[in-house]
Amino acid sequence: MSAPGAACGPIASTFHIGIYVFNDVEVLDFAGPYEVFTTAARMHARDVPGSELFCVYSVSEVGQVPILAERERTASVRARAGLRVLPDADFTNHPTLDVLIVPGGVVDAELAKPPVIDWIRRTAAQAKITASVCTGAFLLAKAGLLAGKRATTHWEDVSALRAMFPAISVEQNTRWVDEGNIVTSAGISAGIDMSLHLVERLAGRELALRTARQMEFDWTENQHQASF
Amino acid sequence: MSAPGAACGPIASTFHIGIYVFNDVEVLDFAGPYEVFTTAARMHARDVPGSELFCVYSVSEVGQVPILAERERTASVRARAGLRVLPDADFTNHPTLDVLIVPGGVVDAELAKPPVIDWIRRTAAQAKITASVCTGAFLLAKAGLLAGKRATTHWEDVSALRAMFPAISVEQNTRWVDEGNIVTSAGISAGIDMSLHLVERLAGRELALRTARQMEFDWTENQHQASF
Repeated sequence: MSAPGAACGPIASTFHIGIYVFNDVEVLDFAGPYEVFTTAARMHARDVPGSELFCVYSVSEVGQVPILAERERTASVRARAGLRVLPDADFTNHPTLDVLIVPGGVVDAELAKPPVIDWIRRTAAQAKITASVCTGAFLLAKAGLLAGKRATTHWEDVSALRAMFPAISVEQNTRWVDEGNIVTSAGISAGIDMSLHLVERLAGRELALRTARQMEFDWTENQHQASF
Repeated sequence: MSAPGAACGPIASTFHIGIYVFNDVEVLDFAGPYEVFTTAARMHARDVPGSELFCVYSVSEVGQVPILAERERTASVRARAGLRVLPDADFTNHPTLDVLIVPGGVVDAELAKPPVIDWIRRTAAQAKITASVCTGAFLLAKAGLLAGKRATTHWEDVSALRAMFPAISVEQNTRWVDEGNIVTSAGISAGIDMSLHLVERLAGRELALRTARQMEFDWTENQHQASF
């Protein structure tokens, strides 16, 4: 099969999805959305052979391989707990993104990097949708994207987000909060629910349901969860 | 924080978890169990500082970096849809595994590799538990590990598993099937449910529930699901 990731071609009908990866990114925070969008693309391609509905790129800050390059001459990203990922692109060479996904994890180092915050701000200004998973909300907040908006994050970090960014209306007990061009999700696995919601927004409910079924994932469609 | 992955030390109380990664492995099939075991280890370390309850390794067939090596001089694994992962170890240098996880994805090429099937068979013979996710069940079956046993796989592949391996009692509509030292799960996200079950078996129910809560994951504890 084709590789919708780094090997995607410039098809006009393709949505370009960029997932930011960084040292200490939470594995499921980026892998969940990655699975959702690439599975959705695969389901879509069953009906429309040759289509690449979603082209998903992992994007890191610096020093990564050029897109389409076969050679791996890169500093990898070491996700939380040690998993190492070779990003598809860096800040200088990724395509224009329709959707920017900012996962969480241990984000302290990222919050202290002006080039990262600036890239998120600039990329979000061009993207149709910018979405965070878990503590990725802190990075969106730092970039000024959440001021005056409703947002959510991991249940353990709700009070910290409120304390650091009082201009945000932080919500709890919800899988995601959709503010149009800005969407935030709760912790870790909630990024899967949110990504399915984004598939629904971009390509319709039928494909989102089919993707959830393919992933055997019990999609929490309503935004409220009981127990966290 | 410490890196329970490749940087784990030889602590006696540590369970060594190996996750097989290969070209066209389904991303969530390996990332889900990775997240579960490393999050469980992190939760445990909050109570027992310095502990490494689960040490998780990605293991590929050949050509990977030695464990603990800092330098990356490796052929990476290209997961399904293009995500590239740098494994922690290969067949020749991983530690003795307590748990072997075999994810699915496009497994045709793996089924045709005698060294892979042989490694799974040999490793399973030493491990306490060998578990598959999704179409990883075909690899366990090929290694002879499922003959005469109950097992499950992705709903789309149930009939193919029955046809190829008639000695297996293939079950549907279940998140996982536990046959003691052999455990198989349904498709993709069901690997998360199964891994939480393995955490419960190895370290108790409380840690499994705490891990699910940390991941904000709605653990399907009973083995039967309604709709797939």
